[in-house]
Amino acid sequence: MNPFRPFWLQGPGPWACIDPTAMAHNLNWLWQRLLRNGGQARPRLWTVLKAEAYGHGLNHALKALGDADGVALASLEDVGRVRRQGWTGPVLLLSTTGMDPADLSDPAFGELHFVVDDPAALERLEQVPAPFSERHAWLRYAGHLRTHGFDDKRYADAYQRLQALVHAGRLAGAGHFHHYAAAEDPGALAQERQAFDAVSAGLPGPRCTENSAALCSDAPLPSFDADHWLRAGLLLYGASALPGRSGSELGLRPAMSLHARLLAIRPVAAGETVGYGDSYRAPHDTNVGVVGIGYGHGIPRDLWRRGQLLAGRDGRPVRVAGRVAMDCLTVDLGPQPPDQPGDIMTLWGETGAGAALPVEEVAQACDTIAAEMLTRLTARTALVVRPKTA
Amino acid sequence: MNPFRPFWLQGPGPWACIDPTAMAHNLNWLWQRLLRNGGQARPRLWTVLKAEAYGHGLNHALKALGDADGVALASLEDVGRVRRQGWTGPVLLLSTTGMDPADLSDPAFGELHFVVDDPAALERLEQVPAPFSERHAWLRYAGHLRTHGFDDKRYADAYQRLQALVHAGRLAGAGHFHHYAAAEDPGALAQERQAFDAVSAGLPGPRCTENSAALCSDAPLPSFDADHWLRAGLLLYGASALPGRSGSELGLRPAMSLHARLLAIRPVAAGETVGYGDSYRAPHDTNVGVVGIGYGHGIPRDLWRRGQLLAGRDGRPVRVAGRVAMDCLTVDLGPQPPDQPGDIMTLWGETGAGAALPVEEVAQACDTIAAEMLTRLTARTALVVRPKTA
Repeated sequence: MNPFRPFWLQGPGPWACIDPTAMAHNLNWLWQRLLRNGGQARPRLWTVLKAEAYGHGLNHALKALGDADGVALASLEDVGRVRRQGWTGPVLLLSTTGMDPADLSDPAFGELHFVVDDPAALERLEQVPAPFSERHAWLRYAGHLRTHGFDDKRYADAYQRLQALVHAGRLAGAGHFHHYAAAEDPGALAQERQAFDAVSAGLPGPRCTENSAALCSDAPLPSFDADHWLRAGLLLYGASALPGRSGSELGLRPAMSLHARLLAIRPVAAGETVGYGDSYRAPHDTNVGVVGIGYGHGIPRDLWRRGQLLAGRDGRPVRVAGRVAMDCLTVDLGPQPPDQPGDIMTLWGETGAGAALPVEEVAQACDTIAAEMLTRLTARTALVVRPKTA
Repeated sequence: MNPFRPFWLQGPGPWACIDPTAMAHNLNWLWQRLLRNGGQARPRLWTVLKAEAYGHGLNHALKALGDADGVALASLEDVGRVRRQGWTGPVLLLSTTGMDPADLSDPAFGELHFVVDDPAALERLEQVPAPFSERHAWLRYAGHLRTHGFDDKRYADAYQRLQALVHAGRLAGAGHFHHYAAAEDPGALAQERQAFDAVSAGLPGPRCTENSAALCSDAPLPSFDADHWLRAGLLLYGASALPGRSGSELGLRPAMSLHARLLAIRPVAAGETVGYGDSYRAPHDTNVGVVGIGYGHGIPRDLWRRGQLLAGRDGRPVRVAGRVAMDCLTVDLGPQPPDQPGDIMTLWGETGAGAALPVEEVAQACDTIAAEMLTRLTARTALVVRPKTA
């Protein structure tokens, strides 16, 4: 794998290299894991493509992950985009809180599943005069997260109201939906699964549960039946939601590698300071490299406190030296650096010659999670899809 | 001022309301300050529009700030954009480190100024065979920042090389450029100004100095002559780069107000937890509001630790309650909230009825600076230009 930078990419700015084969690998990793888990038949799978497919580009991810049963999105605008892109399978709209259900009725949306996660949304749904064809409603259990959905007392009643709409021919189907609050904790996860089983026990209809942390967890997976829908997001992009474990350790491959160019190398004498507010003092005679990425591209300015980059294809770790600026940052390349201006630096992902820096580690250094790192890149960072190699 | 949200803005997501009259006000504030500063003639001014005009939209800022003498940008791509947008005045490219100077030669760029901030860039400039018309080179002094430019020993020699290009008719002009490392500290600023005066003393050619922190500082401004170019960035957008002082306190007006909708209100009992990983525990019976903005829109996930929002037009401060999610966040609205789903919440800027939350305060709560908050919004946050009102 090479940190592909097409010659036509203008300017000194950074680029995120998107690897569709890594996404396909990660999807296959999940299928294999589900196969090993056994069960009568394989469950169905929503691939979660919200927030531009976790920053990887909705259209790119849609092509790479087309083997899934359906795609899950966060806005009707995105539903329209995947339809324009040619996706004809089911689409799941992950929330309808604050929405007018009448907006869901356009037949051009095709087979549209949507989550009913708010009493007001359920009420508005009942008031829509026209019947919905190809519309499946999923009732969300509030569970432990409590930010959306129906709690233990109100769940069964709300589900009966959805079923009444199905029986009246006004919905094509209804099901049960749960989103975990602490799937990275096996004990909490088991409790959350039990609570959902309890609240939906005896009620007909398919289930939709799981997330990347739950699907990657060491805790045993329950056995799923053929009308159980799972949801996978972060893991498809090769990152882990489990604390202290990278996606690579799990067998996943990073689908995004973030690169920038080394623009210049500058000698700095021992004791001299570099950067805004004297934020780096050279501990010895050294060289500082100027790298063409800054907080205006969406990397955290906070990176300067604890961050490192990989230099060149060999991926030598180099420390961020001084405060990150809007358009560039500086690294300490050491007294006799082998680097050349024009070299490719790797902020996270793979260098092209076997070295890698998991985005999870960068996130941890910035006291956050991989999903924030991947989704916070701004429009000033180019997305470049790696061409397939033999 | 009303937190304008056009009805055609789709979906539950957030929007940044851009106020061109505030930008014009801030530019005028600066002209007034320079007038009060006296001097023989007014200096000239670059408005810094890099990073999408600090997140406000390059085209929007270009229209609002068209009274300036020139615009400063960080990439040739942006130079092309302002030319396509109809800007016919001078343009300053803030760095040429890592660039091929031959790329600057397209006559369609018009009057193009560029900063020579790297010995290699100077060398490449000398090797370009064709003469440049309408090309002005500015030599950058390394100063205290030391990430770009020429140090005390090398500055005069490098400037003579630029002058030689001017005399040979291969450049239209050459000048002196300085960017401060600690302009927010009056003592350090005075030293940085002295060092630049010393290194450029006796050399002909115009000067280009200052930044928003220096222009807003309590420290007295030097007197500038008519061929001194100043640079203003952050202050044009109404934010302050001085620690502990907001733009409003200086007399500036925020050009961006970031809003999201209150999507739902949910009762939570005393002792119950809300959000991922039990991250908020209700101290008493209360109501949690779900707000349609999350870290996938470019606000810091870190906001949950210390952040607050303004609720409604009155702008009642409400605390972020629990970890910020990718698409939403939750706030504690209190036991008997006056709020309604659909209400407009303000992350920073103005509420429309006099209340305001300076972006500088939000930045401070997240241990960063206003410029990062403004530039980190992702493409999933809509920019909406406020229509002029009478």
